[in-house]
Amino acid sequence: MHRLLLLLPIAAALQAGTPIPGLMPLPTKVEPAAGALPIGAAVSATANLDDARLESAFDRLIARMTGQTGIAIQRVPPADPAHPTVRVECAGRGADYPALGEDESYRLDVAADGAHIAASTVDGALRGMETLLQLIAPGPNGFQIAAVHIEDRPRFPWRGLMMDVSRHWMPVEVVKRNLDAMAAVKLNVFHWHLADDQGFRVESKRFPRLAERGSDGHYYTQDQIRAVVAYARDRGIRVVPEFDIPGHTQSWFPGLPELAAGPGPFEIGRHFGVFDPVMDPSREETYAFIDEFIGEIAPLFPDPYFHIGGDEVNGKQWNQSPAVQAFAKEHGFKDTLAIQLYFSQRVHQILERHGKKMIGWDEILQPNLGEGTVVQTWRNQASLADSVRQGYRGILSWGYYLDHMKPASYLYTVDPLGGVAAQFSADEAARVLGGEACMWAELVDAETVDSRIWPRAAAVAERLWSSKDVTDADSMYTRMARISRVLEWTGIQHRSEYQPMLDRLAGECPAAPLRVLADASEATGLDQRHGSRYTTFTPLNRFVDALPAESELARALEQAAARLAANPGDAAAAQTLRVQFAVWAANDAALAPMLEGNALIEELKPLSGKLAMAGATGLRALDYLVAKRAAPKSWVAAQSAEMARMLKPNAEVVLAAARPVKLLLDALAKSGK
Amino acid sequence: MHRLLLLLPIAAALQAGTPIPGLMPLPTKVEPAAGALPIGAAVSATANLDDARLESAFDRLIARMTGQTGIAIQRVPPADPAHPTVRVECAGRGADYPALGEDESYRLDVAADGAHIAASTVDGALRGMETLLQLIAPGPNGFQIAAVHIEDRPRFPWRGLMMDVSRHWMPVEVVKRNLDAMAAVKLNVFHWHLADDQGFRVESKRFPRLAERGSDGHYYTQDQIRAVVAYARDRGIRVVPEFDIPGHTQSWFPGLPELAAGPGPFEIGRHFGVFDPVMDPSREETYAFIDEFIGEIAPLFPDPYFHIGGDEVNGKQWNQSPAVQAFAKEHGFKDTLAIQLYFSQRVHQILERHGKKMIGWDEILQPNLGEGTVVQTWRNQASLADSVRQGYRGILSWGYYLDHMKPASYLYTVDPLGGVAAQFSADEAARVLGGEACMWAELVDAETVDSRIWPRAAAVAERLWSSKDVTDADSMYTRMARISRVLEWTGIQHRSEYQPMLDRLAGECPAAPLRVLADASEATGLDQRHGSRYTTFTPLNRFVDALPAESELARALEQAAARLAANPGDAAAAQTLRVQFAVWAANDAALAPMLEGNALIEELKPLSGKLAMAGATGLRALDYLVAKRAAPKSWVAAQSAEMARMLKPNAEVVLAAARPVKLLLDALAKSGK
Repeated sequence: MHRLLLLLPIAAALQAGTPIPGLMPLPTKVEPAAGALPIGAAVSATANLDDARLESAFDRLIARMTGQTGIAIQRVPPADPAHPTVRVECAGRGADYPALGEDESYRLDVAADGAHIAASTVDGALRGMETLLQLIAPGPNGFQIAAVHIEDRPRFPWRGLMMDVSRHWMPVEVVKRNLDAMAAVKLNVFHWHLADDQGFRVESKRFPRLAERGSDGHYYTQDQIRAVVAYARDRGIRVVPEFDIPGHTQSWFPGLPELAAGPGPFEIGRHFGVFDPVMDPSREETYAFIDEFIGEIAPLFPDPYFHIGGDEVNGKQWNQSPAVQAFAKEHGFKDTLAIQLYFSQRVHQILERHGKKMIGWDEILQPNLGEGTVVQTWRNQASLADSVRQGYRGILSWGYYLDHMKPASYLYTVDPLGGVAAQFSADEAARVLGGEACMWAELVDAETVDSRIWPRAAAVAERLWSSKDVTDADSMYTRMARISRVLEWTGIQHRSEYQPMLDRLAGECPAAPLRVLADASEATGLDQRHGSRYTTFTPLNRFVDALPAESELARALEQAAARLAANPGDAAAAQTLRVQFAVWAANDAALAPMLEGNALIEELKPLSGKLAMAGATGLRALDYLVAKRAAPKSWVAAQSAEMARMLKPNAEVVLAAARPVKLLLDALAKSGK
Repeated sequence: MHRLLLLLPIAAALQAGTPIPGLMPLPTKVEPAAGALPIGAAVSATANLDDARLESAFDRLIARMTGQTGIAIQRVPPADPAHPTVRVECAGRGADYPALGEDESYRLDVAADGAHIAASTVDGALRGMETLLQLIAPGPNGFQIAAVHIEDRPRFPWRGLMMDVSRHWMPVEVVKRNLDAMAAVKLNVFHWHLADDQGFRVESKRFPRLAERGSDGHYYTQDQIRAVVAYARDRGIRVVPEFDIPGHTQSWFPGLPELAAGPGPFEIGRHFGVFDPVMDPSREETYAFIDEFIGEIAPLFPDPYFHIGGDEVNGKQWNQSPAVQAFAKEHGFKDTLAIQLYFSQRVHQILERHGKKMIGWDEILQPNLGEGTVVQTWRNQASLADSVRQGYRGILSWGYYLDHMKPASYLYTVDPLGGVAAQFSADEAARVLGGEACMWAELVDAETVDSRIWPRAAAVAERLWSSKDVTDADSMYTRMARISRVLEWTGIQHRSEYQPMLDRLAGECPAAPLRVLADASEATGLDQRHGSRYTTFTPLNRFVDALPAESELARALEQAAARLAANPGDAAAAQTLRVQFAVWAANDAALAPMLEGNALIEELKPLSGKLAMAGATGLRALDYLVAKRAAPKSWVAAQSAEMARMLKPNAEVVLAAARPVKLLLDALAKSGK
């Protein structure tokens, strides 16, 4: 628990200077300097440009400083105009709307008398301000910003977060707070998955029945969309809308059944998976509709890219439709892939006519898609290579699926230029634009989505921004834990929803014993939880829904266990483990009675019993280790097997508590040899 | 931790029925019945009246049910119009604006097929809906509302919360979320302390300089005030504005120095206490101003009562002013009290002209104040008796000062009809209208105010609503702990700000060890914290500001310690205590390094050391008790003295952890005799 000096390795760490708090994404160059800028109740901020985006960024900067310090900070004019607290210097304004490839680099110099951000563009200055906010920390004289020289620029120009607002509805405020969190870790593309089988979420004035019959009343008005786009622009974030066609379109058809290749009647999708309903590619009216629809919707989104989905077309209804089959025969299409290519080409032409470039999931990949097309890879890393080798540009989402609830360390290893891409030529590599973390919404709703995206999306943000050689997972985790706390001041609720959800489950009882179990557990993801149990109506209010993907407590205990395994005389590590194991061992006695008669949590009985076992086993293992006594081999083996079983899902939850105990057992097994 | 059966004692508890979750305020009559109403994704709600307030209450009901269950509930039309999920029947609409003395009674019947609320008025129905929401709890088949028959009516008609928005600024959203929490515990008067020395918080179009120069830019526009009044009205809450005159008016004078009795120049007050600046009672222009000001402001507030403060006039500037002295001589006023009576009478006439009744703090108490005047007692309970005996009506705030951070059990013992009032005649007793919890804002800001008001204000709400004989503090605490968690779904942030404030203090380090200390500590109040250290500019971002007034953990451990003292063989109690004491004993080793070099928390070093001592002492005391061995008397005496010292403020914090340990030591001392 010593205060952490988290610097770039090697050179920087050798310099004397004020300790720099953990930053994320890690900047290209960080040179600590002596001293610190104290944060007081009056902060001045000026720019060399008169720019509305900078002005609103200054207001947010003051508000965030207030939140992060608890000091009621007023923005004041600088006493000395040459020395405001924060001085921003932009060589130019840059693009009026955040542009792909915009120069986002910045230089940040903090000294005792002020902070100076220099950038080529307003977007670059925005990135610098986020770094400045991350630097705020308590010091020997109160809150301060450590003196430092930072040079920073992104590795990839396309660093996105996709949010699926179809499978579960995400109100505007959910989107906005996620935009704030994105900006804080320098993500710059909000990919808005606006229509899928389970909901059509956009008002169309030309085709009002789409939202009327396809959304259960949950859709964004065009004014709300414009407001979100403006909100994102203010934060240097592009908004790329997605209307997934020709498949994943079940929610379009209750309003416009004539678009479908198959016979109706159609209802909004309530289950999850890949369904048959698909647009009819054989009728000119379909393209006329798409033309008119895109003509209406495209102007809402200033970004040149327009995402048309294109994934998971199972072709069933095309194969079953005499009209489509006749059409295919006439055109000589020998399979549904060929039909989809035709469809994609037609859509590409329409987009072009409306001034948009096409982006789609990797199923659209075919020759002759049209220049400028971007392929978003989700199926495997090889398909990114295929796209790039065929001359398209590509972004990677394979490996960045947040809904699978994989640990941040896994997301962190996925590199858009890793795997087969490592052999790319410079030209090919340049066509890899970046990547996007994807938040599919089968098993998240407005209440739980934040804790599924954050803090893990910060690990993806770092992969896409920081140098390729920034790969140390321990450093990442330490910094991510800090940034997770700092993020809270953006308004994101990934941490704050946890306790109220547990309280709700505990009902009349104080939730403390439930919290002990929760802190030691981890939620599983879509790959473990799918199945017929879930529909869009299934409440996501269970224990698993309250839990994060990773237990910070288990991680800290694993570190202590590793220290103890290396040195059984480490009294501090032993103490940390012993206290926590004792809490676990005693917890079932308090929790078990609460579970009785409570349908929401009675499924946790086995889990709670296992936590007590893990605690008891941990205590016994500790005793052997600390006393340097040999443990009975059969006991070690049996307990190791038991810990492994605890890491299998139970009530859709994994008992992370087993991991540190397993480490101690491993150490005993090793020493017993 | 067994599931709790919290019923009215005696008769009701004898009946078979579904367990009723803890309610607060406790209703007049609660009769459990068999069965429960399950909560599903579709809820219908109808009323026999077409009423906008009921309609918006239904929408809030659905939203709160959604929050409290995590089920995305849709409001639907009833399948059978005669059997909606929630059926409200009002004999009449009642007053259009919530009126003092309005019939707030209701009857609530919940059965497996629906809930029925019957009331005389819309206000009564609103109270019934809040009870219904409190009844939601997880049961054997999911979230449910226990079948029950409830009859309920308030004991006092005036049940208020006063918020001081002058000493620290409270934005509109802070006021609104507190109105929601008030409604949840059936408080019905929001007393809005809008002007004091440290800020004049209301836009006056006639006298714009008041807010311009008296508020640092932090004031409510008239539109915002109208919106708050409408928001409160929707929730059955009256809004009584207070403009404190003739003293506590320092913030009026930067804008209108001519109102002052003393010479300027004047500045907004930055310190706290009783200051000299006071209005000039000798000039007719003062009354002309008050007349014009009230004429402008009064129509914003539909309530007939208008609070004119009147407290803490020290008379200094009146005594020093030749003009005021000449005026006093001319009128034959022999002291400043006589001058204030004259002033109060003139203000009373002005209020009457504008259709308002006067209310003021008990310093205004004098004969001849004018009929209809209400006196708000804060200095001592006897002055409430004086007011009532002089024929005025009165409300009690003495004993309900939330800023003193006294425990809920203390607030709970204060009864408007307790003390000398117990001897009142029926007529006199009828003039005691109720009481108000007061949140003075020297040491709270928008971030911390919720945790200073809640959940303790619920104890005051119960005192003012429930029967006089509802006085069991243990029952109150158990129910208050539950209601504190339920309140969170109103949007109040009394619980959610705690962890982020600790995270902020911990800086780069995970806050877990700081949280252990915080959970074992309690904040002191204004009586312990005043002094020159604090001005309106002092950040309220320290450890003490994050802490609540009472430690729920310490209370639970005290209960365990009491059980163990009564029965040293109570293994569960011993286990609970042992685990927690071990956590405390180990905590300083983790926390101490975090405190180094962190100016915000280094003051906690002694406190952290003491917590470790308390833990170690508790463990040793436990060993003696459980083993039924005698402890050395000198050790018991020394440790008892040490625990007593820990309950003295240190870093403005009390170490509540000492209380359960002290209980064990007491038991040892007793058994040693």
